[in-house]
Amino acid sequence: MTRSGPTLDELVEGVRAGDRVLLARAITLVESRLPEDQARAQEVLQRLLPHTGGALRVGVSGVPGVGKSTFVEALGARLVERGRRVAVLAVDPSSTLSGGSILGDKSRMPSLAADERAFVRPSPSAASLGGVARRTRESMLVCEAAGFDVVLVETVGVGQSETAVSDMVDVFLVLMLPGAGDELQGVKKGILELADLVAVNKADGEQLSLAREAVGHISAALRYAPARSEHWTPRAMAISAKTGEGLDELWEKIEEHRRVHGSKGVVEARRRDQHARWMWSLVEERLLDAFREHAVVRDWLEEVERDVREGRVTAAQAARGLVEGFLGLGG
Amino acid sequence: MTRSGPTLDELVEGVRAGDRVLLARAITLVESRLPEDQARAQEVLQRLLPHTGGALRVGVSGVPGVGKSTFVEALGARLVERGRRVAVLAVDPSSTLSGGSILGDKSRMPSLAADERAFVRPSPSAASLGGVARRTRESMLVCEAAGFDVVLVETVGVGQSETAVSDMVDVFLVLMLPGAGDELQGVKKGILELADLVAVNKADGEQLSLAREAVGHISAALRYAPARSEHWTPRAMAISAKTGEGLDELWEKIEEHRRVHGSKGVVEARRRDQHARWMWSLVEERLLDAFREHAVVRDWLEEVERDVREGRVTAAQAARGLVEGFLGLGG
Repeated sequence: MTRSGPTLDELVEGVRAGDRVLLARAITLVESRLPEDQARAQEVLQRLLPHTGGALRVGVSGVPGVGKSTFVEALGARLVERGRRVAVLAVDPSSTLSGGSILGDKSRMPSLAADERAFVRPSPSAASLGGVARRTRESMLVCEAAGFDVVLVETVGVGQSETAVSDMVDVFLVLMLPGAGDELQGVKKGILELADLVAVNKADGEQLSLAREAVGHISAALRYAPARSEHWTPRAMAISAKTGEGLDELWEKIEEHRRVHGSKGVVEARRRDQHARWMWSLVEERLLDAFREHAVVRDWLEEVERDVREGRVTAAQAARGLVEGFLGLGG
Repeated sequence: MTRSGPTLDELVEGVRAGDRVLLARAITLVESRLPEDQARAQEVLQRLLPHTGGALRVGVSGVPGVGKSTFVEALGARLVERGRRVAVLAVDPSSTLSGGSILGDKSRMPSLAADERAFVRPSPSAASLGGVARRTRESMLVCEAAGFDVVLVETVGVGQSETAVSDMVDVFLVLMLPGAGDELQGVKKGILELADLVAVNKADGEQLSLAREAVGHISAALRYAPARSEHWTPRAMAISAKTGEGLDELWEKIEEHRRVHGSKGVVEARRRDQHARWMWSLVEERLLDAFREHAVVRDWLEEVERDVREGRVTAAQAARGLVEGFLGLGG
């Protein structure tokens, strides 16, 4: 963002007024890796903060091929028809490496991307999942300040991206494919324990009975996943993003989840905890970055870590030596 | 440990010679929270380190009531009969709080505790799970240096203790109870993704058919757990610690797991990774401790965290301010 761009006041007021061009520029500022942009972004965020928190935040995860784009487009269209304002963001750690990205090409959601009542933003590129997740989280706040009342955060089953997304949303939805063997469909294992809802997509035509069978298997497996909430039992259902079958019922479940937790104050409590955890994870990240970049640590680390791996030095001794070297000489 | 206790040389040589009294004292030293003892303990560990790594390290987890003590006693007895030397350690974070502890009372394993070929050590008490886990990990090294070739690390389903134990062993075994509903039996959810093997205990008498049914359910659920190893498919089986049924088959599976991974060098690679992760988690712990104890941070933290939770300050701004306060003034 150049000096000739909008002022901070213009950005803040533009976002608040729902100006799409200024909204996009504010998010570009949030996504920037330039230190001066980051400082400006924090000022903008700080001023928008009182106007955030108004959206129902929904995470949508699933492996490539599960039909996430079709689903988000179909669900988003229904919601804007009902007068909701829908923002779609993405956390895709693979976009940094491959260039290929979910939402990297808005033409994957042509009608939603063109709709005035919706806002579709591809995954930011960043050096790390932490960076991608932080930028998406902050972009979500910007969208809320702009008046969007549903934010869909899409992610793909790579690394820990689902965990990051589940820690920034109110409801976490996992899309799966019909088919008995998860080995065959490439479902990421362990994902079920994050799910508030599981939707088996492509439950149409010849796959309908397979999808119903999958719903049964997944329902059984959900019983072994850790409880996300004492007020909610995760459930699986069959949908078809193509025909629209089941989408209304699914959204009803999402709103029920929100109602149940909202009326008990759980949503607010969970968001406060998410904020605090986010702050702590940033503190940890910054401390470890400073640690790794410290001259003394940089000179020692490789050798010390090798000695620990090979069993020549105990982990405790190595850790103490490194941390003392770091703190002893100050930042 | 008083000054009139054994010298470091005596401890190291005693452990190496398999002297049970000196072994127990070395572990007491490792468990001590006194700074001077900790420094001595690190010296002892450093000298024992070249003699460690010789044991098959097995984690055993399960909720209270699943029959862990009976199981460990029965399995341990079989192993010492076959000439193995068995050490039993425990990670029990609840012992600190409640005083009640798995293995807190050796009389729960009377014959094994009395056997010369075995060594049973209760869970250390410590202020945190991290402290308990560290001490148990170091005690495991001491036992290996003393010539024990099987180390069973017992843990109970509290907090993150299973994760800590699974990160210090070669094979992780989860004991479960017969019965269809995991809600009913209090099985900790999420545990399956750590399991290399699941044994449904108490598969005897009237519960036999229930146990077989549970094995079927768990086998299905294991398909949704993330893979721990590309060389191994986790499996469930029925056992009875009381009658001994299935124990030989279970041990055969444990040894098969070791053979498969040992021959491919996976055990060694995994242990090297465990050492490195352990060092990093100690580095993080020490950095965060220093951070929390820092005067500037202590003065600010409560207020800043409250501002972040309540949405008055962004997490990024708060984290930056705190870390700069910490590093700016040095350790």
